[in-house]
Amino acid sequence: MPTTEILWQLFLVFLGAKLAGELALRLRLPAVVGELVVGIALGPHALALVGVPGPDLLGYAGSAKHAGELLHGVFDILGQLGVIILLFVVGLEMRVEDIAAVGPRALVVAVGGLSVSFVLVFAFGQAFGLGSLTSVFLATALVATSAGIAARVLGDLGQLQTNAARLILGAAVIDDILGLVAVGVVGGIASGRGISALAIVTLAAETSAFVLFVALVGRRIIRAYSVHLDRLRLPNATFAAALALCLGLAALAGMVGLAAIVGAFLAGMVVAETREHVDLDRQIRPLYDLLVPIFFVISGTRTDLTMLGNPSLLMLVGGVTALAMLGKLIGCGLGAIGVTVRDRLVVGVGMMPRGEVALIVAGIGQSVGAISESLFAVIVVASIATTIVAPPALKWLLTSGSFGAKLTDETHRRDPRNDDLTLVD
Amino acid sequence: MPTTEILWQLFLVFLGAKLAGELALRLRLPAVVGELVVGIALGPHALALVGVPGPDLLGYAGSAKHAGELLHGVFDILGQLGVIILLFVVGLEMRVEDIAAVGPRALVVAVGGLSVSFVLVFAFGQAFGLGSLTSVFLATALVATSAGIAARVLGDLGQLQTNAARLILGAAVIDDILGLVAVGVVGGIASGRGISALAIVTLAAETSAFVLFVALVGRRIIRAYSVHLDRLRLPNATFAAALALCLGLAALAGMVGLAAIVGAFLAGMVVAETREHVDLDRQIRPLYDLLVPIFFVISGTRTDLTMLGNPSLLMLVGGVTALAMLGKLIGCGLGAIGVTVRDRLVVGVGMMPRGEVALIVAGIGQSVGAISESLFAVIVVASIATTIVAPPALKWLLTSGSFGAKLTDETHRRDPRNDDLTLVD
Repeated sequence: MPTTEILWQLFLVFLGAKLAGELALRLRLPAVVGELVVGIALGPHALALVGVPGPDLLGYAGSAKHAGELLHGVFDILGQLGVIILLFVVGLEMRVEDIAAVGPRALVVAVGGLSVSFVLVFAFGQAFGLGSLTSVFLATALVATSAGIAARVLGDLGQLQTNAARLILGAAVIDDILGLVAVGVVGGIASGRGISALAIVTLAAETSAFVLFVALVGRRIIRAYSVHLDRLRLPNATFAAALALCLGLAALAGMVGLAAIVGAFLAGMVVAETREHVDLDRQIRPLYDLLVPIFFVISGTRTDLTMLGNPSLLMLVGGVTALAMLGKLIGCGLGAIGVTVRDRLVVGVGMMPRGEVALIVAGIGQSVGAISESLFAVIVVASIATTIVAPPALKWLLTSGSFGAKLTDETHRRDPRNDDLTLVD
Repeated sequence: MPTTEILWQLFLVFLGAKLAGELALRLRLPAVVGELVVGIALGPHALALVGVPGPDLLGYAGSAKHAGELLHGVFDILGQLGVIILLFVVGLEMRVEDIAAVGPRALVVAVGGLSVSFVLVFAFGQAFGLGSLTSVFLATALVATSAGIAARVLGDLGQLQTNAARLILGAAVIDDILGLVAVGVVGGIASGRGISALAIVTLAAETSAFVLFVALVGRRIIRAYSVHLDRLRLPNATFAAALALCLGLAALAGMVGLAAIVGAFLAGMVVAETREHVDLDRQIRPLYDLLVPIFFVISGTRTDLTMLGNPSLLMLVGGVTALAMLGKLIGCGLGAIGVTVRDRLVVGVGMMPRGEVALIVAGIGQSVGAISESLFAVIVVASIATTIVAPPALKWLLTSGSFGAKLTDETHRRDPRNDDLTLVD
């Protein structure tokens, strides 16, 4: 096994992620945009420094196809570990009481954004002649706001304490959960159960049952047993137990036909209930720093931008991006009850950024042949575009008038410490 | 790519490592012994829960051979990352002044142990009819004391401050460096340069030159530029830079024909010079906790103990283990100048444990066909045996008489904080 070649590519991925992340932050963009762009640049469709087997690997594997699969497999698992850690951290930051606090108003915003966005993108896909299955994957990929990117954008603008920000974050959190259900559903479709109404209802029920079971039963078990971890001689036993739970639930979710990230997210949410939460936040950070950027860079390497030279695809990407933005603007804007018109706009724009869910669904779609290489590029470009547009648009909305006033009398329920550990930085 | 199967095996590896580590610590053995044993139990030659492709992977890969190679490749890279992090941490704990402090006496102990151990095991291999190349790999694998295990054993016995302990740790540190040179040499042999005296001298010179260049020039560059890391907007930029250096030097070492761990070790040693050292120790720990046990468990899974049912192999493993112990006892004992006879015995026994170097050399040897599957098992068993024997033997020597008195007037140069972050726990 020629590990040197793979190590070198891993080094390029990691170094590229960090340099591009730094550059993005200096341009006041989320680091994740830099990571995706550097992935596109390093990948087989551009510089070909990453994701292309070198002579040693070709010699070892015997054939180009086999060598490519080996390289793909190794990066796939590392990226999967990254996205598992990402969703574990999302879960760690999320508490049942947080969601209860923003309440039904945030739920209306989330469901409004999800449904309008889904309907618009799905209809556009159908009108474009993409076929039902492909249109479902495309629309599902762009259904969920990235809570991590939304929190980061609001935090960068110093607006985490505003009324609109609380609504956005609450809705984004609910979005993440509904997005996971959607991933569960497309995961089930991918495993060959088809897209009949019955199959979708069954899968949604299964996912919800898994989520509820772990959240309710698992929480009690963890609460009862986590106090005994101190008795172990193993150093950092609590961290080891949390990580084992994360890997175990991720694998279990995969085994019952859901996406692995559903399990990782639940593991994070369950572990967040223990008193060791703060320490875990700190300990998970280095794993996050190493593995999460790998997921985004690798997603970038699988993106072939040259395809956008094709006028038809360029039209597709323009339409999909516009409708993905419009879907959130209309759905979330209409769903934001009892706020000013400008607040409705702020909520709609704040809910625009797509992120990890889009890339995960795109990956699942690609693995079953429902998402072609060119559609993968469309989804990545739409994710980048929605993430790039939100910060300046929000800034303009928030600073050009009286709306920027902060609600200092109400303390935001999110712990500022958690905001420091933003999901995508 | 059926990631669920691989995730599940990874979960078993991680959970097994932690449970076995806990059990080993309760039996007053180093955790690494538990990790190797649990690997043997989980692996294809016993329970077959890890390292055997399941139905999904077989379906994806098309053939059993291809599926096995994919699984092997993924675990290989994760184990490689583990051993890279391990050697990075060894480097982080090592300072030029530490080695200078114990000075020439420790060098004599190290060289004595290395040479007698090599000659005895090599001669036994030849007498056993193993052939020159195989005998070189076998002897090289068992040449180096594991500084991590030695430090752990002495720490567990509360003897880190004694005169003999200082000599052992100093010698083990030098052993690690000379062991890396040996790994560089066998790595070069593995890449087809043969084992002529000229080739060995060239490789040793190359390794030394690489080590000296990075240690001297790299150190200056790091010292000059590390202060600028604070200016970056990236969170945890120092940690990211240290990790990038670790991956980069590991890949570079591989590219110039040395073992990747040589680069990782140097990266750690160079980074240890910066003022952020303490914080890095803390941040690298979670990566260590996740990845290092994977290396030892995976090494265990590749070990087929049933082969020891063969009387000839049982004789080989008995002879190799006895000579590996005797080599250190004689070589280090004779090399320990100016101490009592009992001190000589303590130093000899303390230098017995083998660890990561043995498994790395065995892996390189296996990849070039010089180490058969049965010899791999012999090396793993010898490593486990030397590591199991040392603690009780040392305890008996140290507590059964006047020698147990501690030298409280001399403070040991090693920072106790570092001993907390032991290499193999």
